[in-house]
Amino acid sequence: MSRATPFPQALAAAKARSGSALCIGLDPDPELLPEGLTGLSGMRTLLRQAVESTADLACAYKPNLAFFERFGSEGWQILEELCALIPPEIPVIADAKRGDIGSTTTAYADALYVRLGAAACTANPFLGTDALAPLLEHPDGFAFILCRTSNPGAAALQDLVADGRPLYAHVMQLFQPWLATGKAGLVIGAQEAAAFHSAADLAPTCPILVPGIGAQGGTTQTLAAALSPSQREMVVVSASRSILHAGRTRNYVVALRQAAETLHAALRNDLRLDPEGNGDGSH
Amino acid sequence: MSRATPFPQALAAAKARSGSALCIGLDPDPELLPEGLTGLSGMRTLLRQAVESTADLACAYKPNLAFFERFGSEGWQILEELCALIPPEIPVIADAKRGDIGSTTTAYADALYVRLGAAACTANPFLGTDALAPLLEHPDGFAFILCRTSNPGAAALQDLVADGRPLYAHVMQLFQPWLATGKAGLVIGAQEAAAFHSAADLAPTCPILVPGIGAQGGTTQTLAAALSPSQREMVVVSASRSILHAGRTRNYVVALRQAAETLHAALRNDLRLDPEGNGDGSH
Repeated sequence: MSRATPFPQALAAAKARSGSALCIGLDPDPELLPEGLTGLSGMRTLLRQAVESTADLACAYKPNLAFFERFGSEGWQILEELCALIPPEIPVIADAKRGDIGSTTTAYADALYVRLGAAACTANPFLGTDALAPLLEHPDGFAFILCRTSNPGAAALQDLVADGRPLYAHVMQLFQPWLATGKAGLVIGAQEAAAFHSAADLAPTCPILVPGIGAQGGTTQTLAAALSPSQREMVVVSASRSILHAGRTRNYVVALRQAAETLHAALRNDLRLDPEGNGDGSH
Repeated sequence: MSRATPFPQALAAAKARSGSALCIGLDPDPELLPEGLTGLSGMRTLLRQAVESTADLACAYKPNLAFFERFGSEGWQILEELCALIPPEIPVIADAKRGDIGSTTTAYADALYVRLGAAACTANPFLGTDALAPLLEHPDGFAFILCRTSNPGAAALQDLVADGRPLYAHVMQLFQPWLATGKAGLVIGAQEAAAFHSAADLAPTCPILVPGIGAQGGTTQTLAAALSPSQREMVVVSASRSILHAGRTRNYVVALRQAAETLHAALRNDLRLDPEGNGDGSH
């Protein structure tokens, strides 16, 4: 997929090709490496094998930068190698959750879209739209804005009600010009039905990145029930540790492939994605 | 200063030693390099000379990670070298504005406090306290929480009023247990007098990192007028580009030293910091 293709179209094409909304998170943990792999070289091997053995199943890969930055410049080198070996037709979402004032965010846009070649990133809305503009408006970029997450303490700020609506709905409204024009999407946890409903009203066509299936307790069925037909088409569902670290024995490549196949099938079935990319018939 | 010293005490000692609240931001921009320096090696040289020529004036150094990450693994290598050459008695604040769910934030804590050896970092509160706990509770760490920034679009979310108070005051209240016990501070832009007043009530003794002097239009005098006596003691005021890139000719080391001296003197005068570290007499 050429970088000239806007991200929402590139993602839709990758979903149609792979046959589901499965995004594989790449969050390597050296303490969970399978038998026979050790240290940073083991991490490098596992990541390469994970991509090679799941490339037909994934509509996107999502490396989380923290798990590379913990190894400093060596970790960044592994991240650069990883992004370079992901097939170009599969979008890379740099899970960075960045957010700073404009000139700094320009530097982050360089890091993520140019240096790593990611097609999209995750970003934090707290500083407002001017702060994120360089991530939103970069010709080769697209930003998934944190909106309503599923961690235990998420509600403390994200559900605060101002002017009759929760903070997460203000985020949708604030970023609406970019959500409506294919430059931004939202991050909404799998169990946050109310946030999906708000998004169906305020940003009905934007891509939504959904963490929280598996590890955080959400299921593909409850997720499917919370989504509008449009959302079912534009959603991308990520699982990380439950796939990358599915196996600890020497058969780990088989185990991670199986974990990816299982979630791929569940998403394909429960989200009723048409493999020809024609949606679910409601459009 | 041993890493066993809690950050607020290490910062207070560094302020007393340096004689002011001056924190020098290290945000290198290769397009602003002075005559005679080019590329990444020029960036490396400028950073080393900046630290060597200002170490007696700075109570902290604050590298912003974006300006290193834009050069990927090479940039991280320069950042690692930079952090290693800063004298150990001067705290390093890793300006990273990170915020993610707990297991990921643990990896960020490793990256910032262990890999880089930073004494403190900046963090984003949007995901709540459980998300930031690994940055707040690390034995060698301290987090400045974004609270009220000075960028043009900051008000859109940070000033939203819920339950009778703005979002930034909810941030103070939410993180109050860490603000009160020396594990967290706040980031408040130099011109945000109302936020300083709220902090004087809700978190009267926490360190406050203040950007926005110079480049963003704040002055040391208006800042001084907005601060309580306790805040004047615990504030740390950062300037980045106006010092690091003060000179573009071959005399750039003289120029950056002069820029640092000028702001150091203004802060010393306007914030009336006692060089013996006894505060301003109100305690």
